[in-house]
Amino acid sequence: MQDSRISDAVVHRLPRYYRYLSELEAAGVERVSSSRMSEDMNLNASQIRRDLNCFGGFGQQGYGYQVSRLKQEIMKILGIGASYKAVIVGAGNIGQALLRYRHFGDEGYHIVAIFDNDPEMIGREVGNHRIRAMSELPQFLKENKVDIGIIAVPKRYAQQVADDLVSMGVTGLWNFAPVDVEARRGISVVNVHLSDSLYILSYRMRENRKNENN
Amino acid sequence: MQDSRISDAVVHRLPRYYRYLSELEAAGVERVSSSRMSEDMNLNASQIRRDLNCFGGFGQQGYGYQVSRLKQEIMKILGIGASYKAVIVGAGNIGQALLRYRHFGDEGYHIVAIFDNDPEMIGREVGNHRIRAMSELPQFLKENKVDIGIIAVPKRYAQQVADDLVSMGVTGLWNFAPVDVEARRGISVVNVHLSDSLYILSYRMRENRKNENN
Repeated sequence: MQDSRISDAVVHRLPRYYRYLSELEAAGVERVSSSRMSEDMNLNASQIRRDLNCFGGFGQQGYGYQVSRLKQEIMKILGIGASYKAVIVGAGNIGQALLRYRHFGDEGYHIVAIFDNDPEMIGREVGNHRIRAMSELPQFLKENKVDIGIIAVPKRYAQQVADDLVSMGVTGLWNFAPVDVEARRGISVVNVHLSDSLYILSYRMRENRKNENN
Repeated sequence: MQDSRISDAVVHRLPRYYRYLSELEAAGVERVSSSRMSEDMNLNASQIRRDLNCFGGFGQQGYGYQVSRLKQEIMKILGIGASYKAVIVGAGNIGQALLRYRHFGDEGYHIVAIFDNDPEMIGREVGNHRIRAMSELPQFLKENKVDIGIIAVPKRYAQQVADDLVSMGVTGLWNFAPVDVEARRGISVVNVHLSDSLYILSYRMRENRKNENN
């Protein structure tokens, strides 16, 4: 595989390609042209060709892309199916929702434990997991090789939890607290801001209303 | 305000500017230069200037941007604080997590009701709301002007719920089911795919590992 860097914009489109190709594959489609992709995905066809060229380019003129092969390649690049172990810190609504979402496991992201510091929560069963005390976290991470820490605690604890997880060997942080957590070089962090998509929604609603009034 | 279209890429960066400026404002900062923004936000300074120029450009050479004024302008563009009413359909984990997240109300996105079709759930109290039966939805939307429908139902029901909400007058859809819902022209839709950010995380973890091994 290529070892050149793929631009951030392309990387951010890869999950969309992956979802689209998965749907095609499930529907039994074997080949797809960039012009059909363009229509279905509402992306420019030449952009699609450029994007897919970034990592090899399996398209053939007048023949299109092989759906399964292209999907596999994108999965490989994104690391989907590579088998990761994750723990969730924070067993509130978001933590529990993530724990119960089975799809992650199917794609190789295995949630192996959930932790909270609320005595009311500790010991409860959620989606086949017993909520563990935060005090058990260091020992747990010593005994289990965990790749990803999922942060679902209130904003004010998020950075501390991130630091603790990293100091215990976690190399990826998926943060749902509404604040950007940071980590040293070599640690990967993705901060999820649910509100951002709500702002985009209200932006589009305003634009639509303006257009109607014109 | 300008009525020219702002490019999609710029629009998608606006929530980040908004969050950043909110933090500065809370810290009592009155002015900020594009070079400081560039450093703090890890964005190119000339890109920041270009972005902010799209909607007026309040920067002055050697003086910087007025934090509060710029934040207010971005809020206006995004529609934050304009007061929207929203209903949630689906009172599972995601639905309840969104209902309990108070921050939305502070910014003008008011969740006024939550619906489910599970007899076990209907009538339960969640975060000061009684879960209503789906059968009450048409009457509720007749009596209350609701702008946004939040879809938190399983994948297979998502499009039907979207269609129903739109036929009952909702003009914005914020969808959390792991499928892209569609709506006719004039209706705004944002599909949230939580997994996408997890794929990006595993991509970065792989890249980091590659760099370490080099």
